[in-house]
Amino acid sequence: MQHFSYDHLYQFTFDMLQKIGCSDEDAQLATKVLLSADLRGVDSHGVARLSGYVRLWEKGRINPNPNVRVTYETPSTAVVDGDAGLGLVVAPFAMKVAMEKAKNVGTGWVSVKNSNHYGIAGYHAMLALEQDMIGISLTNASPLVAPTFSKERLLGTNPIAVAIPAKEEPAFVMDMATTTAANGKLEILQRKGLETPTGWVQDKNGNPTISSDGVKDGGALLPLGGDREHGSHKGYALGAVVDILSGVLSGANYGPWVPPFATAGFMQAGETVGNGTGHFLGAMRVDAFRPADDFTNDMDKWIRRFRSAKAIEGKQVLIPGDPERELEAIRRVEGIPLLKPVVEDLQSLASRFHLDFNVD
Amino acid sequence: MQHFSYDHLYQFTFDMLQKIGCSDEDAQLATKVLLSADLRGVDSHGVARLSGYVRLWEKGRINPNPNVRVTYETPSTAVVDGDAGLGLVVAPFAMKVAMEKAKNVGTGWVSVKNSNHYGIAGYHAMLALEQDMIGISLTNASPLVAPTFSKERLLGTNPIAVAIPAKEEPAFVMDMATTTAANGKLEILQRKGLETPTGWVQDKNGNPTISSDGVKDGGALLPLGGDREHGSHKGYALGAVVDILSGVLSGANYGPWVPPFATAGFMQAGETVGNGTGHFLGAMRVDAFRPADDFTNDMDKWIRRFRSAKAIEGKQVLIPGDPERELEAIRRVEGIPLLKPVVEDLQSLASRFHLDFNVD
Repeated sequence: MQHFSYDHLYQFTFDMLQKIGCSDEDAQLATKVLLSADLRGVDSHGVARLSGYVRLWEKGRINPNPNVRVTYETPSTAVVDGDAGLGLVVAPFAMKVAMEKAKNVGTGWVSVKNSNHYGIAGYHAMLALEQDMIGISLTNASPLVAPTFSKERLLGTNPIAVAIPAKEEPAFVMDMATTTAANGKLEILQRKGLETPTGWVQDKNGNPTISSDGVKDGGALLPLGGDREHGSHKGYALGAVVDILSGVLSGANYGPWVPPFATAGFMQAGETVGNGTGHFLGAMRVDAFRPADDFTNDMDKWIRRFRSAKAIEGKQVLIPGDPERELEAIRRVEGIPLLKPVVEDLQSLASRFHLDFNVD
Repeated sequence: MQHFSYDHLYQFTFDMLQKIGCSDEDAQLATKVLLSADLRGVDSHGVARLSGYVRLWEKGRINPNPNVRVTYETPSTAVVDGDAGLGLVVAPFAMKVAMEKAKNVGTGWVSVKNSNHYGIAGYHAMLALEQDMIGISLTNASPLVAPTFSKERLLGTNPIAVAIPAKEEPAFVMDMATTTAANGKLEILQRKGLETPTGWVQDKNGNPTISSDGVKDGGALLPLGGDREHGSHKGYALGAVVDILSGVLSGANYGPWVPPFATAGFMQAGETVGNGTGHFLGAMRVDAFRPADDFTNDMDKWIRRFRSAKAIEGKQVLIPGDPERELEAIRRVEGIPLLKPVVEDLQSLASRFHLDFNVD
């Protein structure tokens, strides 16, 4: 795989977003959010998606100059209308609103409608860390997941991210799809022509399958747990809560009605029950509960105790966020590896929009 | 199994709690919370635990007349000190505080320290439903669960409950341990001498086992997902977030330091890093986001769409809370079935405390 420097990808993505009409400020923010996925190893949600955003814009589903605004609020809550903007821009706006409310009354909770794909959930949750707040970030997404016992896809991979500050230790950052495996992991196996482990996918009849083409062939991703005996009803319930807080609470679409992202042959939004895609962002000031120093001291103690747990031979107990942080440190130095089809996709964008995308 | 009427078990539990010194009001509340587990089919958390609470009281670990109070607050947050009271009483107090704050500023979030086992998580979350609020209820618990790659038990089964109101449909009520299977389910297999499915338990060396005695023999319950390939790092992260919001945020114990419930040979609290057991209760007023009618209409639509999904042959897609609600309707009529050891345990309590526990 070829490696590209962060700065190289940053400049290209920024230029591309300006080409579709984003302001300087929005293009900068959206680029930073998008590339945070590449840095942290969530490769499916980074520049690999850039051409998808462009296609959505071409179909008129993304407004490059949105009037993102609060449409309703109380001291600790708000609803934000994303005005069909890039979720990459809408979600940080909403998180800022949540953090402002947390400053004033201890916590802030913002449900977002009329948005689009917002990149990696973790980015938005981590915004809270700078101010010793706990950050929470959820989003619904187009249906790829079958609830327990369902043949139909009714939920997205609906991620949950929670970022919790510590003192000397790096922050605790959970960022997980509510499925056994994220769709990006499945796509990697597809490309390599490999089978999946059990419990990841079912076929179109609702039977377990280890075919990595299972979802493409009309099947579905499975909720965390995989099957009923292994707790898939729990993964389903978690994904459902994410859907409801993001979609139903804001007035966005929910369940099977969440509009698709721009992947081939899966692009037109159908019947709607609300506005666009929904997110849910939360911020809790740590010192709205305990002095921040006491809390972060105990978080250091928590983290150290778990990291030093007696581990299975050859393994170590990790703290959520460890692998992503370590990968980011490496990729900032060594560059970001891109698969050939992704490079070609970016080159094709470059030629269509008269930009440079140099491949050495 | 013998069946006992709700009223019969209610009277006995109430009398028993008075015997250990609870006020009428506290005994009524605690009885109601405890028996809600028996009604909803979470048999491990109901009257089967009554003698455990009594043993904790005998060891001086439960204060039957606690001064439960808010020790710190902001408009949307509070910390509650349970004064070593029954969690069955402390948690509803904290939920009331959360709901009062939600009335005033849209949401309320209460972290609780110095408490004890609070029964089923779902009961407390469901208190919010009466006022068209979304209720959230978390608690940490004594360590039975090994994080991914750990040989040591560092987390409890740390449940997450979320209750969401609908209009004509019954509410959505998720109430789940963050493990593949709850400890109660494991105990049932133990009693019957049956093996467990894969992914529930590991042995003392951290190897997968299907022995239902695995936990007793020094092993551990596994986080939802079961192993790394099936997403156990996600179940671990969820359990960790529950632990941190309940324990670290309040100043209670956390991780391996959470004091044990009163089961045989597993009773003495050891080193502590905070006060007692921790909970986390939240309430969000639905109309702090959208008119409640719009929200509950959409919830009805959500629920009906999921319940009518095309299902696998012979199955139906369920809404979280369906099985428990249906069981409660049956048990209110037909009575609550108790295993022989539970009946004997209650009889032994009755004779020790000079109460009647009639078995026809």
